[in-house]
Amino acid sequence: MRPLGFFDGRIVELDEKIVAMEDRGHQFGDGIYEATRIYNGKCFQLKRHLDRCVRSLRELKIPIVYTYEELEEIHYSLIQASGITNGFIYFQITRGTAPREHGFPKNVIPHLSMFIRPMQTKTELQAVGVKCFLTPDQRWLRCDIKSLNLLGNVLAKQAAHDAKCFEAVMYREDKNLITEGSSSNFFIVKDEVIWTHPINNLILKGITRTILLEDIIPSLNLTILEKAFSPEFAQKADEAFITSTSLEVMPVISLGGKIIGDGKPGKITQKLQRAYREKAHQECK
Amino acid sequence: MRPLGFFDGRIVELDEKIVAMEDRGHQFGDGIYEATRIYNGKCFQLKRHLDRCVRSLRELKIPIVYTYEELEEIHYSLIQASGITNGFIYFQITRGTAPREHGFPKNVIPHLSMFIRPMQTKTELQAVGVKCFLTPDQRWLRCDIKSLNLLGNVLAKQAAHDAKCFEAVMYREDKNLITEGSSSNFFIVKDEVIWTHPINNLILKGITRTILLEDIIPSLNLTILEKAFSPEFAQKADEAFITSTSLEVMPVISLGGKIIGDGKPGKITQKLQRAYREKAHQECK
Repeated sequence: MRPLGFFDGRIVELDEKIVAMEDRGHQFGDGIYEATRIYNGKCFQLKRHLDRCVRSLRELKIPIVYTYEELEEIHYSLIQASGITNGFIYFQITRGTAPREHGFPKNVIPHLSMFIRPMQTKTELQAVGVKCFLTPDQRWLRCDIKSLNLLGNVLAKQAAHDAKCFEAVMYREDKNLITEGSSSNFFIVKDEVIWTHPINNLILKGITRTILLEDIIPSLNLTILEKAFSPEFAQKADEAFITSTSLEVMPVISLGGKIIGDGKPGKITQKLQRAYREKAHQECK
Repeated sequence: MRPLGFFDGRIVELDEKIVAMEDRGHQFGDGIYEATRIYNGKCFQLKRHLDRCVRSLRELKIPIVYTYEELEEIHYSLIQASGITNGFIYFQITRGTAPREHGFPKNVIPHLSMFIRPMQTKTELQAVGVKCFLTPDQRWLRCDIKSLNLLGNVLAKQAAHDAKCFEAVMYREDKNLITEGSSSNFFIVKDEVIWTHPINNLILKGITRTILLEDIIPSLNLTILEKAFSPEFAQKADEAFITSTSLEVMPVISLGGKIIGDGKPGKITQKLQRAYREKAHQECK
């Protein structure tokens, strides 16, 4: 069992040099990515990831040259070749290699690169929750595209780590409204209503977020409100949590130094956490 | 005479695969770049480019592992090996290769890649000027860092090309103020005063801009005002121009479909253009 990559039609070692310097991913961050969870040797919710991938490519006008069937096949060939049954598969598609000019190059084929690594569910952390750092959102205005322009996310995450926090929760300074985490969506629970930022250009439509909103929350008869809120409002919430493909539903026990609720994972958060785990288990039997 | 690259201590072909998929430039756009003009076999204003490079690295907390002397030496080895005497040298430094995590990896050595390509001054275009497209500035809030997160610039440039314009001039929608071009700084002349956006987090401190402001404009006894202005104000200017290392001083004859002045390069613009050419000629004899 070992991490493996895929590039240009073949399995490669992760340290193999596959990128020329003028790949537009390398010089402009000109590309998109997805990361899918592997449970029990199966890709969880791959269709939703591929749908989002296609949307990101269309928004950036990167030619779509890979079919769903092909991408799915490569995912499973990586699972098989690596022997990894619990992990994640990351892939990115860049606009391809061309002499450096800002505008789109013509007649260039996009580059797909992919890798698989092992990953275990952070069950111990999920049981106690994590601290989050509050920081201004400095990212561009197309955070709905899952692009490789991730410096804003990288700097926010590092600032969180420097402050001994697990994740950074970002807010737009102009309106004093929380958007999302540096690699997660952010939710609060207040008086039994679940709040999260609405889908627009300021946040990524996370797959775990979608699963909660479309599949799990309705089935549990809970109330969800897609409405932005301030950091101060969030700090007074009864519960808070973040979601992502790798974190699943992760309780947040403090935000910007303020304890949330009683400082323990909330009841509704735990209900969602269990329902999500159950769904993943059912679909990836 | 042919384009050449440099990576890991040696001259390489430009299409050679030099980095692994987990280079942070490739996955996060986590790096910085510079592009220096070569006139007559000499690097023009290399010191200012290297100063800005160091600032960008510091802002992103990328370890600084290359000395000025070393970088200068590589520039000249590329000039010599390629036989290119009029061109440009591009280099970028990424945070290096590490298993994909948003936060900074520890003990990783940054990657330097560099290339030289021929480039001639666009003297014919400089004589007639260019049309510019007006578009909202969607970039992140650290445009002062010359980073590899360039999708906002790429999309703006392509929108300009789609509209048969040479360059995109961007404005922040929240304040209705012009910031800069997608790969240039933007200036107007109104009643003999030269206006340009002040240095802050919303624009890049272009080297050509600095040369104009610090060296040329004072020597010509012209008046410069670092103050932001609206697209509508710019459209009523007497003259307009953009500056960059590759374009030098390029007259703008229309902006967002409105003719600037009499639709020809302005007098002050031409004066700056000549002075800049003369300075480059003097320094790179």
